[in-house]
Amino acid sequence: MSYNVGIVGATGAVGQELIELLHARKFPIKQLTLLASARSAGKLIHFQDKSWTVVEATPAAFDDLDIAIFSAGGTLSKNLAPEAVRRNCVVIDNSSAFRMDPDVPLVVPEINAEALDVHQGIIANPNCSTAITLMGLYPLHQEFGLKRFWASTYQAVSGAGAAGMHELETQIRDWVNAKPMKVEAFPHPIAFNLLPHVDVFFDDGYTREEMKMVNESRKILTLPQLQATCTCVRVPVLRAHSMSINAEFTKPVDVNRARAAIAAFAGAEIVDDPAQLQYPMPKDYAGKVNCGVGRIRKDLALDNGLALWIVGDQLWKGAALNAIQIGEALIERGKVAS
Amino acid sequence: MSYNVGIVGATGAVGQELIELLHARKFPIKQLTLLASARSAGKLIHFQDKSWTVVEATPAAFDDLDIAIFSAGGTLSKNLAPEAVRRNCVVIDNSSAFRMDPDVPLVVPEINAEALDVHQGIIANPNCSTAITLMGLYPLHQEFGLKRFWASTYQAVSGAGAAGMHELETQIRDWVNAKPMKVEAFPHPIAFNLLPHVDVFFDDGYTREEMKMVNESRKILTLPQLQATCTCVRVPVLRAHSMSINAEFTKPVDVNRARAAIAAFAGAEIVDDPAQLQYPMPKDYAGKVNCGVGRIRKDLALDNGLALWIVGDQLWKGAALNAIQIGEALIERGKVAS
Repeated sequence: MSYNVGIVGATGAVGQELIELLHARKFPIKQLTLLASARSAGKLIHFQDKSWTVVEATPAAFDDLDIAIFSAGGTLSKNLAPEAVRRNCVVIDNSSAFRMDPDVPLVVPEINAEALDVHQGIIANPNCSTAITLMGLYPLHQEFGLKRFWASTYQAVSGAGAAGMHELETQIRDWVNAKPMKVEAFPHPIAFNLLPHVDVFFDDGYTREEMKMVNESRKILTLPQLQATCTCVRVPVLRAHSMSINAEFTKPVDVNRARAAIAAFAGAEIVDDPAQLQYPMPKDYAGKVNCGVGRIRKDLALDNGLALWIVGDQLWKGAALNAIQIGEALIERGKVAS
Repeated sequence: MSYNVGIVGATGAVGQELIELLHARKFPIKQLTLLASARSAGKLIHFQDKSWTVVEATPAAFDDLDIAIFSAGGTLSKNLAPEAVRRNCVVIDNSSAFRMDPDVPLVVPEINAEALDVHQGIIANPNCSTAITLMGLYPLHQEFGLKRFWASTYQAVSGAGAAGMHELETQIRDWVNAKPMKVEAFPHPIAFNLLPHVDVFFDDGYTREEMKMVNESRKILTLPQLQATCTCVRVPVLRAHSMSINAEFTKPVDVNRARAAIAAFAGAEIVDDPAQLQYPMPKDYAGKVNCGVGRIRKDLALDNGLALWIVGDQLWKGAALNAIQIGEALIERGKVAS
């Protein structure tokens, strides 16, 4: 069995990783079609010994596709995902357009693959910080019962796409060459700086990115009462996100059991040997399938609390990899027609 | 009235800021003496139209000094501060050597200047992250009563001194020139990376830096039962520290009252206008007297909680400025002989 697969947003940073990962993971592709907005249609994309001409993402473009992975922003997803579904194409959507729709499963396959079984054509891929955070928090939830958590993020510029990565690199080069920094992709310079601001602000002072962590965690973990507060910060790192987490549980916690639970969880790994100065760092997590968890210790201000540090590739587990894993799980569970 | 002032560790990053700030703030200096370890003695230091030859910090070097600011590491402080006190020289110590000594006041002048009145010759200057954090937390404590807090830090490389700043700059230049990065001042590369590791590790997994935040906050705020958990992270920023804080209070909180309390507190300023994309950022806090506080909002996982973001100059409020402010307060309170 193999499938006609489409990537919508093929020219973006996540699109590029999707092409690479579909090949690296030997996704059962009959034919790969690269789609994008009219602006990018006609572009030629090369990968290994192949090349594709990007076609415009129109409703008719989905006629012959079995699976389409959307990573081209919420507006395009909102307009075209229903058209694709109407044409019997299953949509895995990397935008936030459908994540909180009660009829749309929001899936991290290692956590809630069973939610795929009731899909109605669209499956949502979670926010990058949320997916990476839950790779550390979910095994702890299974072990101790998650009650509430606080997250402070250290988010790479890849979260703003290829333009974000280009902006950090360009500002760094300009600094070295004593030229003024240009500011385009972010509202302020990011080189040698931090922006406590990711996505738009709501009236209560939170950003949409911060509320995604709260709302998407509740949905993925099926914990509608879960309490969480998140502070999202952009840092001058290229493509791995890091999270400092304080979490409270319903049962007594134990650091060694916490490490064992995370180590046994597919997709997560423990890097937690302070004596050898080993802990997860973003430089080691670009292009890595697993998320790294370390600095695990008893929280000093909570009765049943743990403090920990989680790192994962924003473009992979935070986007392209998780989307493809959703596709793999759909096939495995017989939830996509070929 | 003017004083014979000595700086021990004059050749370091904090030492340089001390020279600049003593002049900028018109500290009443009769004569300024620059001291350092034997290794740096003999060096010539220039500032504006003056120059000094650095003299070796020996016990006898304190004979004619009224005030000495130590910023040359804990070992030198432990050995020489008592010698200075024996010679009637008041010591303001920037190391961690005496901070938790019950006979030594640990002072942020805007918070607990009255602790200076019982000094016995040595006054300790707090850890950088702690001093900056409390510039935001203390006015909230006065308003709402601090019960416990969680801090995730984003610490600049200046915390590792001139060598730390040099290392980030050198690694960035090497990256632009496609040369391999040298790693000397930190255990791993810091350019484009994060190290969830500042100072040494204890057996329970916490670092000494993280426990300074807990223990020094208790002492400065006179809250021996205060609970706190801190995760300290080194980021590729040159000299301002940032802190993401979640804090629980005994009384109901209000965001507008929180802003007003911080705005009214000397040494802190509110930068909190999300609609105009205004929040404190490290790029704006190098060489700034005030600490900036923003992103103030109700914590979603605490009954009486606030989330906030605090930024301050590591070399100034986190070190040199606070030390000089201690000296100014000592003089104002008549607690130093000339």
